[in-house]
Amino acid sequence: MTVKTPGVSWVTLTIGMLGGDEREQEIARLAAATGAEVRACGFPWPEHGIPGVQHLADPVAVLKGAKFALFPVPGISADGALFAPKSPAPIVPDRSMLAVMKQPAHIILGWADDKLKTHAADLSIQLHEYEWDRGMMLRRAPTIIEGLLKIAIENTVITIHKAQVCVVGHGTIGSLLTRYLIALGAMVHVVARSPDRRAAAYVSGAEIHLLEELEDLAPELDILFSTVPARIVGENILARLRKAALVLDIVAPPGSVDREAAKKLGVKTVWARGLGSRAPVTVGASQWEGIRERVEKIIQAEL
Amino acid sequence: MTVKTPGVSWVTLTIGMLGGDEREQEIARLAAATGAEVRACGFPWPEHGIPGVQHLADPVAVLKGAKFALFPVPGISADGALFAPKSPAPIVPDRSMLAVMKQPAHIILGWADDKLKTHAADLSIQLHEYEWDRGMMLRRAPTIIEGLLKIAIENTVITIHKAQVCVVGHGTIGSLLTRYLIALGAMVHVVARSPDRRAAAYVSGAEIHLLEELEDLAPELDILFSTVPARIVGENILARLRKAALVLDIVAPPGSVDREAAKKLGVKTVWARGLGSRAPVTVGASQWEGIRERVEKIIQAEL
Amino acid sequence: MTVKTPGVSWVTLTIGMLGGDEREQEIARLAAATGAEVRACGFPWPEHGIPGVQHLADPVAVLKGAKFALFPVPGISADGALFAPKSPAPIVPDRSMLAVMKQPAHIILGWADDKLKTHAADLSIQLHEYEWDRGMMLRRAPTIIEGLLKIAIENTVITIHKAQVCVVGHGTIGSLLTRYLIALGAMVHVVARSPDRRAAAYVSGAEIHLLEELEDLAPELDILFSTVPARIVGENILARLRKAALVLDIVAPPGSVDREAAKKLGVKTVWARGLGSRAPVTVGASQWEGIRERVEKIIQAEL
Amino acid sequence: MTVKTPGVSWVTLTIGMLGGDEREQEIARLAAATGAEVRACGFPWPEHGIPGVQHLADPVAVLKGAKFALFPVPGISADGALFAPKSPAPIVPDRSMLAVMKQPAHIILGWADDKLKTHAADLSIQLHEYEWDRGMMLRRAPTIIEGLLKIAIENTVITIHKAQVCVVGHGTIGSLLTRYLIALGAMVHVVARSPDRRAAAYVSGAEIHLLEELEDLAPELDILFSTVPARIVGENILARLRKAALVLDIVAPPGSVDREAAKKLGVKTVWARGLGSRAPVTVGASQWEGIRERVEKIIQAEL
Repeated sequence: MTVKTPGVSWVTLTIGMLGGDEREQEIARLAAATGAEVRACGFPWPEHGIPGVQHLADPVAVLKGAKFALFPVPGISADGALFAPKSPAPIVPDRSMLAVMKQPAHIILGWADDKLKTHAADLSIQLHEYEWDRGMMLRRAPTIIEGLLKIAIENTVITIHKAQVCVVGHGTIGSLLTRYLIALGAMVHVVARSPDRRAAAYVSGAEIHLLEELEDLAPELDILFSTVPARIVGENILARLRKAALVLDIVAPPGSVDREAAKKLGVKTVWARGLGSRAPVTVGASQWEGIRERVEKIIQAEL
Repeated sequence: MTVKTPGVSWVTLTIGMLGGDEREQEIARLAAATGAEVRACGFPWPEHGIPGVQHLADPVAVLKGAKFALFPVPGISADGALFAPKSPAPIVPDRSMLAVMKQPAHIILGWADDKLKTHAADLSIQLHEYEWDRGMMLRRAPTIIEGLLKIAIENTVITIHKAQVCVVGHGTIGSLLTRYLIALGAMVHVVARSPDRRAAAYVSGAEIHLLEELEDLAPELDILFSTVPARIVGENILARLRKAALVLDIVAPPGSVDREAAKKLGVKTVWARGLGSRAPVTVGASQWEGIRERVEKIIQAEL
Repeated sequence: MTVKTPGVSWVTLTIGMLGGDEREQEIARLAAATGAEVRACGFPWPEHGIPGVQHLADPVAVLKGAKFALFPVPGISADGALFAPKSPAPIVPDRSMLAVMKQPAHIILGWADDKLKTHAADLSIQLHEYEWDRGMMLRRAPTIIEGLLKIAIENTVITIHKAQVCVVGHGTIGSLLTRYLIALGAMVHVVARSPDRRAAAYVSGAEIHLLEELEDLAPELDILFSTVPARIVGENILARLRKAALVLDIVAPPGSVDREAAKKLGVKTVWARGLGSRAPVTVGASQWEGIRERVEKIIQAEL
Repeated sequence: MTVKTPGVSWVTLTIGMLGGDEREQEIARLAAATGAEVRACGFPWPEHGIPGVQHLADPVAVLKGAKFALFPVPGISADGALFAPKSPAPIVPDRSMLAVMKQPAHIILGWADDKLKTHAADLSIQLHEYEWDRGMMLRRAPTIIEGLLKIAIENTVITIHKAQVCVVGHGTIGSLLTRYLIALGAMVHVVARSPDRRAAAYVSGAEIHLLEELEDLAPELDILFSTVPARIVGENILARLRKAALVLDIVAPPGSVDREAAKKLGVKTVWARGLGSRAPVTVGASQWEGIRERVEKIIQAEL
């Protein structure tokens, strides 16, 4: 994905990075590879460092004179701290910290809470949220799918090849998962509410079903992936699954599977979470693509 | 695609079909298979008839007492006649013809012109257009793609396997075409304006490019498919293609390729049109799915 | 496929090419691109020539002083002439013609008849037949499969996508065809005698059947590809096919389908022959790979 | 894989099973489902039993009057005991144990050692080894490949999608692995000695290389799978890999990777062994297919 934008000079930029996890290592590496000055704090620092990136202890030093700040995708906790699980101290981007940036300044991040929005507005710093960017979600999708395949493989006594698999939902993840499973030789059933999405699944090679048909389909299934953010997989469905079936819930809390019922009925259920941080180099690189595009657009607009 | 809707009784329905081509044969066959009374006029009639379908000469007799009328997808000509290339006489759905339907009546069709809309409004007949139904478009897509593959195969001296192929545009047809070409072993380049669509193409396995990069990419290409409804493939691109390259334009008039320039430069160009009527049995069946869903929804709403 | 062999100097070689069709144009072009002296006669000559290749009228002049002669794959007719359908006069490689080659001389060709073998033995010219080279057959396979897809697409009223397709035989062509059809979304049934080949087909994603089961399978099929060099598809099977089914025979004479019975029963049958000459640039290039490997091995052995 | 053989009556048969692991549970279940009398000993017994299968403590009681004995695939240890890791006592099929079978008796097993061969010959019991059955190997292949994918996914910081992956060797596992990796979006390089296998890999969509080229290819690779039973991946190759590269050795002892050198150089290496016992239900079922075919052939021959 080496799409280039003309007329953008990176070597004059200073970029400060606060918080994050292994993904930020790759983002920092790629940011420095542009020639920009990159400083970082709050994510796990590799033993041999990152070429061209300065690792500082103080968040204020990181942001001082920086035109761009990069904050991690997972967002901000209730107490206002950035996502930084390996940081010795919480990093709270308060007004005094942000005030040291070089105007006109920009923060590129997953999403901002109200406090951060207020500070930014007061300081005339522009916020650029990309948590809901569909292109970014798509680029993360193979990472998530591969993580799901691993979970499916390690929790079954059958192969995906020739297994009867149902994917509930046919959005970004559901549709790509369907294509992967078909490529691996599974017999794939897709349950979706929208006729358009059912048509897309049919074209991909799946058998398609209405949501109401899931209950009757259940006894045929070896694996059921649930991708719809609603409590879809209830006791009525769980009770009709085979003893050896596996249920994989990939929906953020509160999830889409009635875990109580599953436990009671003895249905093996895995709640697959945090898959976005597997393959941190690939995910970091794809996030960097999105960040890079934003930076270049901002610079071109300011020319 | 045997999705069933409960509580719908077909045997009491009368359906009249006017105009069309080979696709309507399959639609009529499937309509009659529901148990409904089906009458038809204006599409090519097979030698051995269609089980359960009455072939009548008079459009009025076809519609008489019918609750549903089915008109063909290609719509209505400037003189108000339905698409019916094999009909001995033009079929113009005027007020007197429509007045014989049984109220509350419904016409399911591709799209209506103003005259037809006026007649229908005056007679309290409801029109249901489905030309722009994305699900229907998707179900037609494999037909169109297979037609494109045939054209590509018969117009090249190389195989699609390992060929350098570019698909300009990544909408319904472009994205499915990309997946087919990758499955056939081509090295696929996708040019798209939207970052989201470029991301989708990347995930599908293609190399991705900005529109501005197409000119530099051109000398590498064996085949170029253009799917964007705009004059994208101009002399600047055509002039840089290889002598043996093939350009396939799949855009409705006026098309997306500068055919004058292509001719002057000696670039082999095929304007692939009317692919929607290849595989009339498959397309008829998928259109029938869309029609059936609409009929059942209408009946359920009237219960 | 740019596999290089060290220690081989092409620029000192003279190569003579006699007979052939469009494939030989590409072979000649690639042969000349090595730096060798290349002379040709007896295949259709392109309007603008071939860079570095001399087109001569006299076969003797072509072979004079040549260390290597390349003859076409389709072999030799009953009267001893090389395959050269566009040649003004037949080219018969007799003793006097071959005697002008430079010793130790080599002829690389599809296969030799007895006369040619005798001449070569008498003149101490080595013959290198490659008609039965499995690697060459494999490299030709995508060409043949794409030609078959084109025939299937233009002779059906349904899509390959979701069609019920049977492939009889699971050798080089049958197994690759199976994988292509699955990639295009067909429901593929493979009939094969050997348990190993059935296992391979199963792993590829097909449903598998014994030969004896073909008769019972027939009524389910939309398309039947027959790839086994034996009269497998007889009246018993043809009589049970659907009216709209298509039979594709890809076996060399006498073929594998009872064409008389098919005609009598009204079963649409296409005998797909000569597919090896479609995509002459790709096939020529892959033949050149095989020729190149042989030339280099010969030269290395003679060092 | 429900291929049926006519004229075989299972209900009159007695089958004794000795040793094994979870795979034997599925084999026993399917054997009993034919109607045969099935007795078992020496593999892990499921909590709720296996329908129709008698679990006995004494191997002699298992074989008493049995026409067929099934022994596990992994074969026989140095001390003559069958593979039976969960058995409380070793099971050594000695002469007195085998003598209780009903003549003419047959043992179907992976492979026999010399002692077992002698006993069988003395007692006129026929041995049927299937360790080297290519069809069985193929049917096991998806299990092994999926196990490999899981290992690759959990040991990398990148996705398989768009990764540069090399598969050394293009036999049963290598060729299927290549196809899987391409389906998952990897850029696959195949290194193989035989030109035929390189051609097969090329047709599958891979880039192909000579063995001598592996050293130069190494710096480009993210993952290297080695499937050739020879010490192919030595220090010369390991030293040129990227720091983050993963090497996966899937060859039985002594393996194909110089593990000492890998350790010294800090190259992450996983020796993937015992993958044949993952997915025991699928593998058991495919082994049962091979066993069933053999039993039916034997019975038909004895008719």
